[in-house]
Amino acid sequence: MLEELKQEVYEANMQLPKLGLVSFTWGNVSGIDREKGLYVIKPSGVPYDELKPEDMVVVNLKGEVVEGDMNPSSDTPTHTYLYNHFPKIGGIVHTHSPWAVSFAAANMDVPALNTTHADTFYTDVPAADALTKEEIEEDYEGNTGKTIVRTFKERGLDYEATPAALVSQHGPFAWGPTPDKAVYNAKVLEVVAEEDYHAMQLTRQNLELPQYLLDKHYYRKHGANAYYGQNNAHSKDHAKREN
Amino acid sequence: MLEELKQEVYEANMQLPKLGLVSFTWGNVSGIDREKGLYVIKPSGVPYDELKPEDMVVVNLKGEVVEGDMNPSSDTPTHTYLYNHFPKIGGIVHTHSPWAVSFAAANMDVPALNTTHADTFYTDVPAADALTKEEIEEDYEGNTGKTIVRTFKERGLDYEATPAALVSQHGPFAWGPTPDKAVYNAKVLEVVAEEDYHAMQLTRQNLELPQYLLDKHYYRKHGANAYYGQNNAHSKDHAKREN
Amino acid sequence: MLEELKQEVYEANMQLPKLGLVSFTWGNVSGIDREKGLYVIKPSGVPYDELKPEDMVVVNLKGEVVEGDMNPSSDTPTHTYLYNHFPKIGGIVHTHSPWAVSFAAANMDVPALNTTHADTFYTDVPAADALTKEEIEEDYEGNTGKTIVRTFKERGLDYEATPAALVSQHGPFAWGPTPDKAVYNAKVLEVVAEEDYHAMQLTRQNLELPQYLLDKHYYRKHGANAYYGQNNAHSKDHAKREN
Amino acid sequence: MLEELKQEVYEANMQLPKLGLVSFTWGNVSGIDREKGLYVIKPSGVPYDELKPEDMVVVNLKGEVVEGDMNPSSDTPTHTYLYNHFPKIGGIVHTHSPWAVSFAAANMDVPALNTTHADTFYTDVPAADALTKEEIEEDYEGNTGKTIVRTFKERGLDYEATPAALVSQHGPFAWGPTPDKAVYNAKVLEVVAEEDYHAMQLTRQNLELPQYLLDKHYYRKHGANAYYGQNNAHSKDHAKREN
Repeated sequence: MLEELKQEVYEANMQLPKLGLVSFTWGNVSGIDREKGLYVIKPSGVPYDELKPEDMVVVNLKGEVVEGDMNPSSDTPTHTYLYNHFPKIGGIVHTHSPWAVSFAAANMDVPALNTTHADTFYTDVPAADALTKEEIEEDYEGNTGKTIVRTFKERGLDYEATPAALVSQHGPFAWGPTPDKAVYNAKVLEVVAEEDYHAMQLTRQNLELPQYLLDKHYYRKHGANAYYGQNNAHSKDHAKREN
Repeated sequence: MLEELKQEVYEANMQLPKLGLVSFTWGNVSGIDREKGLYVIKPSGVPYDELKPEDMVVVNLKGEVVEGDMNPSSDTPTHTYLYNHFPKIGGIVHTHSPWAVSFAAANMDVPALNTTHADTFYTDVPAADALTKEEIEEDYEGNTGKTIVRTFKERGLDYEATPAALVSQHGPFAWGPTPDKAVYNAKVLEVVAEEDYHAMQLTRQNLELPQYLLDKHYYRKHGANAYYGQNNAHSKDHAKREN
Repeated sequence: MLEELKQEVYEANMQLPKLGLVSFTWGNVSGIDREKGLYVIKPSGVPYDELKPEDMVVVNLKGEVVEGDMNPSSDTPTHTYLYNHFPKIGGIVHTHSPWAVSFAAANMDVPALNTTHADTFYTDVPAADALTKEEIEEDYEGNTGKTIVRTFKERGLDYEATPAALVSQHGPFAWGPTPDKAVYNAKVLEVVAEEDYHAMQLTRQNLELPQYLLDKHYYRKHGANAYYGQNNAHSKDHAKREN
Repeated sequence: MLEELKQEVYEANMQLPKLGLVSFTWGNVSGIDREKGLYVIKPSGVPYDELKPEDMVVVNLKGEVVEGDMNPSSDTPTHTYLYNHFPKIGGIVHTHSPWAVSFAAANMDVPALNTTHADTFYTDVPAADALTKEEIEEDYEGNTGKTIVRTFKERGLDYEATPAALVSQHGPFAWGPTPDKAVYNAKVLEVVAEEDYHAMQLTRQNLELPQYLLDKHYYRKHGANAYYGQNNAHSKDHAKREN
């Protein structure tokens, strides 16, 4: 069942240790088949060097295990919640990457301070509200998804244009059109969190990027007029036209 | 004598350089056979790439060498003291991992600021009091164990729920039910010390986790109702129930 | 066409991940044949582990693609501008190396605080002015070159003696007589940015090097009286004479 | 000539990149044959992956090249000065390791804040005075040795008990009874500089170790009563006696 997706999710999971985003088993990636309404996720607590594609667990959008001998990630209810409320995402990743965790522990957004940020995230990456005592005791992992979605709604953010969030006191979640892109976004978040930290120690000036620079970098890589990379009609033309 | 335990202790020692917890020979792991009242420890000053399982030294709970041609770790009296006073631990590790040492040098606890901490340590990891001049001159390594045990007693801490301590001006000790788990705990301490440092530079707000979040994360992984990983009755059920 | 230069530019590009200067595809190196007025540059968005020498794109000094099936780097107009206005440079590199980016985000020069800096950069490495809204919307990448050149002119800097600049909010560009030397200069900038950051956190004293020390270190490695390395008449003689 | 010493110095040089102490060619190790009054040093500017034992240059205590086709390190006059004024050292190493350089740039000693420091350095590692304009122009590398020796004299330090110094605005020199031990000391300095930096950011309290703790750790590893490691009469006995 879903063998190709399992392979894809397996490979995305295996990127996490390579990119320095996880220690031990502290991370998980999932990917969804929207037509079938099923998603595939890493099993809970299995070390990366023992992981195999066939270990991936298949879960439906009620959060029920549909196939697999192993327990799915304990963060499965968070993934379920996000897939249900962010209908255009195809993959989700959760890590405890250390720079993003530092901002989550400080209960601070990862602000947009440089163009690497703007290439991937159109706004600050928000730190979602910490869960209340009641939310934690009632349904911890489900409510972890809920606080992310609520934060995007309250701030009027577009989850496709800003494909990540911190959960305060906990760590980052990132997503994207595919599991692979979700992992890419998680790595970008880690890189810019490190850079932001150092910039914020160097000066107390307000370093937020102006909107026109966010626009330029974000739309250089995304949307109809993108011209970065090889897969768009605009790029070679742009290179010639610009000089 | 104790060949299996020697192999286990050897392998746990070899994890230290792999996990980035030691430079040169600056660390040691031991493991105990509680029935025989004997423990096995790394020899003193032997480089990791020359270490062999049969080099491990067997020591009794009076701190006397029972088997082995080499000198045991110079920290042996600390291990002896801890095994005698923390009767449920099966392995001990001492490192000079740099982030934990930085907190030890600052004479500060590693505070519980994020859920990675809470997954492993139920409270702040305490910085035990620095030794007095008399304690250092009388029995330095033995009193290093004594200050740890005294600190746990004075603060009313449970050494099983918070399986590590800093010795002020010196560095971290960690322990656990097995040598392997002790090394895991030492790595978690190093990771959260790094994250805490950065969070504490980002803001001067009080970032301590609330007790209900410590409870949730700690008991998600420990005890009768744990549901993380593959080895418990609750986890798959939980994944279904939660959504 | 330009097969040797393509090989040289390819090898310089492949140094970027080895030296820890890039994540993913975030960097590019070019090299110029001044006689032909053509330069060779990395294609846009191609991962380093898939890159081949024959993928390099040939561009003229109007910024037009002369040979190559792929789109050139989206930063091509910046390279074109710099080659046109810094006539003695033979190679250019752009990265998003994290320490240099932190200074760029903080809108701060990388100051000359130690002799490693002085060995390669004769002055502070300047943070060029951020682009205005009009400059960004009119010709973003071309104007990125323009702000660098303008900054060198306004401050009276010699682009051969200080072969790098930060673009504020963005990141570093470095250059040199060859693509290989440009990459070397980019790595030096990253190293000294890290050291400067830490020195600036340790103390608020003014740590700028005096001019006579900049002179000594810079001219020990550059110009007619250089005596570092194997390729000059002065060095062995110097070693004898000095004591 | 001196083939064994050349091999030893070669191997010590090759440790520098492995221990993360150098980028490119920025470092050099030498070792001396005190009976012959000759020392062996790395050639100037040769990359580590091209270095061979037979490339090592033989220099006498006047700083004259006695054997070798290549130029010796441009820091040769510093080595000569140190060998002449610190008569018991057998090896010297100079690096630009980044944490030690940060303290040198800040013109600050690396203070004794933890027992890893005390195991190797009996006091703070001093930042020698920056050279004056006259000293730089007259004999830069020779006077680099002079400021180190002068600093040890002025502060009444024992160069065997504190086998390293920073040169302000420049970087660290370390030494020891052999080239290998000198490299070890250079690595310890780098490790404790990193730990000190972080401890000093965590708190503004005075964290200097008390003298009795410096005594305990230093003499646990050095001198007639040392009991760390395998090569002394006291260690096994100590392990037994202490508990």
